Amino acid sequence: MNENLFETVFSVEFGDCDPAGIAFYPNYFKWLDATFHHWLREHGLNQELIGTRFGAVGTGLLEAGASFRAPMRPGDYLKISISSIEWSKRTFKLTYLGTCDGNLTLEGHEVRGLLKNSQEGKLSLMPLEQLRAIIE
Amino acid sequence: MNENLFETVFSVEFGDCDPAGIAFYPNYFKWLDATFHHWLREHGLNQELIGTRFGAVGTGLLEAGASFRAPMRPGDYLKISISSIEWSKRTFKLTYLGTCDGNLTLEGHEVRGLLKNSQEGKLSLMPLEQLRAIIE
Amino acid sequence: MNENLFETVFSVEFGDCDPAGIAFYPNYFKWLDATFHHWLREHGLNQELIGTRFGAVGTGLLEAGASFRAPMRPGDYLKISISSIEWSKRTFKLTYLGTCDGNLTLEGHEVRGLLKNSQEGKLSLMPLEQLRAIIE
Amino acid sequence: MNENLFETVFSVEFGDCDPAGIAFYPNYFKWLDATFHHWLREHGLNQELIGTRFGAVGTGLLEAGASFRAPMRPGDYLKISISSIEWSKRTFKLTYLGTCDGNLTLEGHEVRGLLKNSQEGKLSLMPLEQLRAIIE
Repeated sequence: MNENLFETVFSVEFGDCDPAGIAFYPNYFKWLDATFHHWLREHGLNQELIGTRFGAVGTGLLEAGASFRAPMRPGDYLKISISSIEWSKRTFKLTYLGTCDGNLTLEGHEVRGLLKNSQEGKLSLMPLEQLRAIIE
Repeated sequence: MNENLFETVFSVEFGDCDPAGIAFYPNYFKWLDATFHHWLREHGLNQELIGTRFGAVGTGLLEAGASFRAPMRPGDYLKISISSIEWSKRTFKLTYLGTCDGNLTLEGHEVRGLLKNSQEGKLSLMPLEQLRAIIE
Repeated sequence: MNENLFETVFSVEFGDCDPAGIAFYPNYFKWLDATFHHWLREHGLNQELIGTRFGAVGTGLLEAGASFRAPMRPGDYLKISISSIEWSKRTFKLTYLGTCDGNLTLEGHEVRGLLKNSQEGKLSLMPLEQLRAIIE
Repeated sequence: MNENLFETVFSVEFGDCDPAGIAFYPNYFKWLDATFHHWLREHGLNQELIGTRFGAVGTGLLEAGASFRAPMRPGDYLKISISSIEWSKRTFKLTYLGTCDGNLTLEGHEVRGLLKNSQEGKLSLMPLEQLRAIIE
């Protein structure tokens, strides 16, 4: 499944760039995270609603990774699309593609889950049926 | 009162600097804010305790400003001191000085207050006696 | 002079907000800085061109300040306008207003100058005629 | 090779945390990157020296990833160690471990290379012998 499930655009600001003049790489993860939240909103969800509806503390991040294909500079626009979502029992993996003027600049992914408070102040992963029902 | 009330040090990272090779200015406010929280901790306080002890939502920021006296670069250490605190009825003003290798790089200030939830989902400022008693 | 000289919009992301659930204040300065760079671009300028055309290292920041009028939350849009520019011989002051859904959330300003390398590796302020001619 | 090659510590600030009250994940990559630069400095290197000595534009980031093992909160200290470095011809992979109070919070890695300007304004990867000789 490699169709575009969602697409959003970010402006690479001067302040997002480092002394090499190119976007500082942790910012790409900031943009991936923001894409995830924009996508939640498109489905009528946000962190607060996920709390009140599902009894979750939030959508935890278990893993994230990215390959950086081409540098980006101040004034560039980064278009990020979600290219696939793979559902497991208690986690889901989002795959992202980032382009600038049609050229691939970024391939990324996040593995997320719904977190709830469990015993001893620890967080544990919740089942995803409810979330998945809303998304699909 | 211009003695040093508190002092803490930050490392200026490569990623804190912009394409001009110098610290990106909003980061100085990040360091002022962190100084405030380090200082609270030295007094046995943090945002959570301020909530549970005082019934406050947190320490709101009403105003912030800074003059930038000299650029800082990756690898520099920024020493920030709180040089004065002025208490008003519902706000207090912190004055900061930042130095690098003994040279002044930053003069800053923040005006803060304790916020509580009031009617209609709005935030309002609380009296500061309790906070002041702990600090002084 | 209080007409709108320029206007741009930012999305307040989940990751821009702090444990109090509201936009972390140094981010407002990130947005002021980005507004400045968007405005430069509207005049056909950016940091590189300012370097090559004017022989400047960049547009230095001498002073910045803001009053925070109302908290902003994830999903909010911050519209920032430049409400005035005051030119001095070697510095210029930009005044900003920020609104969310028509309500004032932010009043800010920056004092900037054009920096060039002078003797002994120090930076000094340049005259502003060239920049001002392009802007006005 | 899984001994600790290098170790450095970061303070998790209030402003590094998101509305869930825990460190916002892109900040972990900011700390990985800072660890890399601290480690370069320990070997007498920085981005500028890498430019002047090796003719490189900088140390490019090709890939980064992390698994988040436990949330961190304001006031926590994140100790990051470099646990291995694997050298390939034109890239090297750094493996990181992050702990808080002795508990694993983070496993991460970065794949980096030395970038030089090549034809048509593109960046290409340089051989790593010189860098490796200094490090080992």
